[in-house]
Amino acid sequence: MFAPVYLDHNATTPLDPEVREAMLPYLDARFGNASSRHEYGRQARSAIDDARSRVAAAVGAHPTEVIFTSGGSEANNLFIKGAAARLKPGLVAVSAIEHPCVREPARQLRRLGWRFAEIAVDGEGRIDETAWSTLLGERPQLVSVMLANNESGVVQDIARLGSGARVAGALFHCDAVQALGKLPLDFRALGVHGLTLSAHKVYGPIGVGALVVDKRVDLEPLVAGGGQERNLRSGTENVAAIVGFGRACELATARLADDTARMAVLRDDLEWALSKLGATVFSRGAERLPGTSFFALPELDGETLVGKMDRAGFAIASGSACSSVDPEPSHTLLAMGVDADVARGAIRVSLGRETTATQVGEFVASFTETVNQLRNLAAVSA
Amino acid sequence: MFAPVYLDHNATTPLDPEVREAMLPYLDARFGNASSRHEYGRQARSAIDDARSRVAAAVGAHPTEVIFTSGGSEANNLFIKGAAARLKPGLVAVSAIEHPCVREPARQLRRLGWRFAEIAVDGEGRIDETAWSTLLGERPQLVSVMLANNESGVVQDIARLGSGARVAGALFHCDAVQALGKLPLDFRALGVHGLTLSAHKVYGPIGVGALVVDKRVDLEPLVAGGGQERNLRSGTENVAAIVGFGRACELATARLADDTARMAVLRDDLEWALSKLGATVFSRGAERLPGTSFFALPELDGETLVGKMDRAGFAIASGSACSSVDPEPSHTLLAMGVDADVARGAIRVSLGRETTATQVGEFVASFTETVNQLRNLAAVSA
Repeated sequence: MFAPVYLDHNATTPLDPEVREAMLPYLDARFGNASSRHEYGRQARSAIDDARSRVAAAVGAHPTEVIFTSGGSEANNLFIKGAAARLKPGLVAVSAIEHPCVREPARQLRRLGWRFAEIAVDGEGRIDETAWSTLLGERPQLVSVMLANNESGVVQDIARLGSGARVAGALFHCDAVQALGKLPLDFRALGVHGLTLSAHKVYGPIGVGALVVDKRVDLEPLVAGGGQERNLRSGTENVAAIVGFGRACELATARLADDTARMAVLRDDLEWALSKLGATVFSRGAERLPGTSFFALPELDGETLVGKMDRAGFAIASGSACSSVDPEPSHTLLAMGVDADVARGAIRVSLGRETTATQVGEFVASFTETVNQLRNLAAVSA
Repeated sequence: MFAPVYLDHNATTPLDPEVREAMLPYLDARFGNASSRHEYGRQARSAIDDARSRVAAAVGAHPTEVIFTSGGSEANNLFIKGAAARLKPGLVAVSAIEHPCVREPARQLRRLGWRFAEIAVDGEGRIDETAWSTLLGERPQLVSVMLANNESGVVQDIARLGSGARVAGALFHCDAVQALGKLPLDFRALGVHGLTLSAHKVYGPIGVGALVVDKRVDLEPLVAGGGQERNLRSGTENVAAIVGFGRACELATARLADDTARMAVLRDDLEWALSKLGATVFSRGAERLPGTSFFALPELDGETLVGKMDRAGFAIASGSACSSVDPEPSHTLLAMGVDADVARGAIRVSLGRETTATQVGEFVASFTETVNQLRNLAAVSA
């Protein structure tokens, strides 16, 4: 089978073999419904309890604060819509660089009488201080700011933002999907009311995520019914995926220091080579995730480069690969004030646990060749 | 490992080995995000397209009418809340024997100004004709009636009900989670606006279901964001589970005639033995699913019997095992007018594809012994 080098870990990660190992019994003999009151049901329930503790431990939360969902998108929607349903309509604000699964539910609230605002970021992609102060002065009811951006990798100072939001009387939510496994996370230290996690960004399975939530927040369930997950998320629990998520969190914690140190070195090597090619690396002046590189080459189209690298055996992304086909330039870059023409050149390389120095070296060689070919073509046709 | 005989297939089913086989590559090398524009992404997208065709074929729908969700609960919530969000508040009605994941979202609509009504059933658990006529006269906006009940197995005449509902101007939804794989299903012939399916009730994985939906119905997404599933259900697609669902649907269609004929015979054998024990079999006068038996023994508590059978090595259910712990007697039976004392004795045995005549025979022998022991105890203490 054709197996390109995978350098798109911010879109999704391969399942860690240890995670798969942990999951397989639950796709086999341990297939029970966790609500059943017999041996199969008890096995499932106990596996879920165990996984809940592991997920909670990875972010310094209490297991009862962890609500399993079908993924990060659902967890983000659950907090935003679920909290809004129990508040009087007011102002909801999200950063201008949020993932659509935060921005869209917040925008949907306008139909229920809410005002919607985006919080500006600076040229590096950090929350703009003036915009933030102005926002807090407007007494928002609900605020959401992501911990690490999926495209640029920029890390926000959530503890400080959260503290300001709380003082201003807002419920503060944070999408930490890209941060888990790449930064130490502490639910208490972050001081947020809700924190979104996803398994498949951290070598766990697609199909499971969690909302870690302060129990004082009154939430209306999105999926109502059988009463699972403290009545906040009904539906038969996805036991195999939840077990995998638990194991993935445990591995993420155990490997955090090593994984991130290694990835930071590889990323720096990559960016040194990219600079030599004349690339603009976005958000280089901000704190970033260790394995993410977001850049553009003058005059070259990102989509074209991604397509050429795909055929050369390297899987990378242009703009955000998490959402469905969207020909618009990256909204993260536009929010940062990057010119649309430059933004259309954007490419994201995101390294992972299994990425080797050899792979990065091969990518650099192949990418350099491709860029030079395209430049020669452009020179000939000019 | 202690592996009791599993007779609780209406709660969940074991994964068919062929389904697991189909899924495993997507938990391994084919791990891509279907939105990624490289080889891994294309593999995932193509697998989803293929699975969507298989699910559509199993219910006579067009692939574009299939919206994948995280399961049946989400699909039911999506239709009810999603359709209601685009309608003026009016009357929403669901049958008195719906699963909580239909009843609860319908009840939640009251907060948005809707009136909520339950449609009465007769003593066998079929929609009451008078109640139905009265309801249609009240011009409901939104109606949901399940195809087959999870507890009694009673099958409703959805095509006829749906036609009446449409004439009355209502959107008509049907939860077919328990019917898939046990009855032939034809989305066109049923004439419903929305049909809910779930993989894990049909030897597919937990964590995936579908809403088959008439495209003329305007739905607001529950999970908004990246725009997946025709913008009706955002979130990274659960490729492995979707692939499993597709294969499970294909197997369900291929095996439908054989599976159901075999299960009907085993169920009749079981009920003949139960009658000899003095059991009341509920809904025996109505059309029922082939493998479901819902019954009670005079003076004996359902929970106690389920616990004793569990220890004897047989996994069966009391009341509905799909929802979380709920000490109330079965609401299906109460809606049928069954006395609460009798309802507290209710036991559900649900047979499956892998159930053998030997297993049913062993269950009957062990159950008879248990019942006799309990009766002797009762006689001694009386």
